[in-house]
Amino acid sequence: MNKQMNEKNFRFELKYKSEECWGRVGEIHTRRGIIPTPIFMPVGTAGTVKTLSPEDLHTAGASIILGNTYHLYLRPGTDVLDHFGGLHNMMAWNKPMLTDSGGFQVFSLKKLNKITDDGVEFSSHLDGSRHWLTPEESMRIQRSIGSEIMMVFDECCPYPADYTTAKAAMDRSVAWAKRCRADHPEMRNGQALFGIVQGSMYLPLRLESIERTGEIGFEGLAVGGLSVGEPKHLMIEVLDGMMPHMPEHLPRYLMGVGTPEDLFTGVERGIDMFDCVHPTRIARHATVFTTNGRISLLNARWQCSDEPIDRNCQCYACKNFSRGYMRHLFKAKEILGLRMASLHNVTFMINLMNNIRLSLIEKRFEQFKNEFLTRYLAKEG
Amino acid sequence: MNKQMNEKNFRFELKYKSEECWGRVGEIHTRRGIIPTPIFMPVGTAGTVKTLSPEDLHTAGASIILGNTYHLYLRPGTDVLDHFGGLHNMMAWNKPMLTDSGGFQVFSLKKLNKITDDGVEFSSHLDGSRHWLTPEESMRIQRSIGSEIMMVFDECCPYPADYTTAKAAMDRSVAWAKRCRADHPEMRNGQALFGIVQGSMYLPLRLESIERTGEIGFEGLAVGGLSVGEPKHLMIEVLDGMMPHMPEHLPRYLMGVGTPEDLFTGVERGIDMFDCVHPTRIARHATVFTTNGRISLLNARWQCSDEPIDRNCQCYACKNFSRGYMRHLFKAKEILGLRMASLHNVTFMINLMNNIRLSLIEKRFEQFKNEFLTRYLAKEG
Repeated sequence: MNKQMNEKNFRFELKYKSEECWGRVGEIHTRRGIIPTPIFMPVGTAGTVKTLSPEDLHTAGASIILGNTYHLYLRPGTDVLDHFGGLHNMMAWNKPMLTDSGGFQVFSLKKLNKITDDGVEFSSHLDGSRHWLTPEESMRIQRSIGSEIMMVFDECCPYPADYTTAKAAMDRSVAWAKRCRADHPEMRNGQALFGIVQGSMYLPLRLESIERTGEIGFEGLAVGGLSVGEPKHLMIEVLDGMMPHMPEHLPRYLMGVGTPEDLFTGVERGIDMFDCVHPTRIARHATVFTTNGRISLLNARWQCSDEPIDRNCQCYACKNFSRGYMRHLFKAKEILGLRMASLHNVTFMINLMNNIRLSLIEKRFEQFKNEFLTRYLAKEG
Repeated sequence: MNKQMNEKNFRFELKYKSEECWGRVGEIHTRRGIIPTPIFMPVGTAGTVKTLSPEDLHTAGASIILGNTYHLYLRPGTDVLDHFGGLHNMMAWNKPMLTDSGGFQVFSLKKLNKITDDGVEFSSHLDGSRHWLTPEESMRIQRSIGSEIMMVFDECCPYPADYTTAKAAMDRSVAWAKRCRADHPEMRNGQALFGIVQGSMYLPLRLESIERTGEIGFEGLAVGGLSVGEPKHLMIEVLDGMMPHMPEHLPRYLMGVGTPEDLFTGVERGIDMFDCVHPTRIARHATVFTTNGRISLLNARWQCSDEPIDRNCQCYACKNFSRGYMRHLFKAKEILGLRMASLHNVTFMINLMNNIRLSLIEKRFEQFKNEFLTRYLAKEG
């Protein structure tokens, strides 16, 4: 750890507010560097963004990645993480990292054994062993990982949820958020902690959650429980209703979102941070982003295509390989194809966000959005 | 194709002959660059050295790679290869390439339908479709691939084979070699053609094969049909008997060999070229070379190991990752592990050959061999 690392220099600087929409441009300063916002964060579930090396992530322009507390807790485990002095050292990633709380995975598990006000008992998907996850335990694990940004342990209810269920989950999330903050006061261990707004699709619950979570006091505020299966118009409705009430001085993180289209949807409503496995997951199934929409590299039409995946992209795959070669790699089930498609999709998302940020500053966000989406959502010839 | 590409400038320059052994140091000049010999060639079966990009191969120091005619013929097929102007363009590999003839794979197939003096009928392992491979067809496919070094279509008989079978396969191989040469005269299309010596484990057949294949006239001479399941001492015996009779002015290629130990065995008997899937195949099963022998990265003893795979290695994996992290990647079945282990093993083989070459020139081959093998073959603590 260098001198800078020892400083508790986490802060959010709001640099520019758009006049065209609720979008904003800022910087999150952390001990491991500055994150420009709005930002897309690639997801490194188990200590690696699947198929990519740290060098790949640097060339893709990533300024922060995610780690999943649930996966890292089960494997390699906190004893190993502690031995290596945290995940950054272990995986050779020297830029900022954000960790979720483990809650989302645990609540999604089929092997969820018991939920009480104290915490959650679950069985490992690896070996069936039983574990107990509480707000305090989630804090402990995230400190072992050593992320710059930790998330509170919350209850994310599935969609659809009736009002009573949604209210109970929101109440419990607020109670757990308090325990997280108590266990992890501001910048303990040099790590920031973000609160999470819940409330399912019920705006009154969302507003109550913003107020009660905000009162506890966090270094950032996330929107949880969206993009969990609800129709897109409902997600937009909830965002429209709640975003004007989110504290302006805190970074706002829309969890688990999204696609290229979603970035515009979130940014223009004032979201600063996004993460999603979507770009890397579809890449491993041969689907890649292009300026003219998503394409499947397995399509027979690319067999003799000399075209790169995307002419506007500067990633290694686009600079060196044709769609024809990429198709061959996927047909032959060659691992190089998985990596190249992942590298491209991550690069595409990060470049898109860079362009969105620039368009906000240059007061042409609406124009850029329309131009991009017109081409991106058009069906190809 | 630049000016150099159009020249038929294939030649073998013998630079240095060891006084310690039959080892020799030379250079193979090709239209796509110079290959220092002795050399280890990584195998790129289906248009990629599994898990590695061309950039990875450059950093590993590869000066030539292999392509497999059988696989490339079935997928992507010669129509696609022709469209892209050959495999170099398609896979973005700008250095020399060697292709086998397809014979070895076809003769290893369970679905080998028919062998005649004209050629071989086989069924594709991909879709069961029937194909007919002849010496002329093998030449045509290898011209579509566009390798710098092509191999004659031969019959490689399995081990063990009785004398009559071995003699018949050797006779047929000589006849097919003549047809290959007739179809592909010296440096047609700018591509060299190597003959292959057969004869199973029978030295008289080997010597006859050297003479008759040599008489046809090729740009290099390979030793086929070894490392096909015979005990190692038998391979050494055959090499000892035949190598003094191999023409000195041609590059000598020991096909499908081998391991780090095999490089010494071959080099000191006058072999110039080696190829093997071994380093990349074992890498994908978590086994890596180290100065102190092979280790499995899955071993529990590495769970908290801060040590790199090999302290003496300069590959990306060894410069950035610990054995502990590598173990985690393999336990979590993360693709980055496969690539990093492959990159390391290929780098290790190429570095080892660089050191062998240097030790020959500096008249300390025996010393280096003893030092290396003592450490490499010793059981670890």
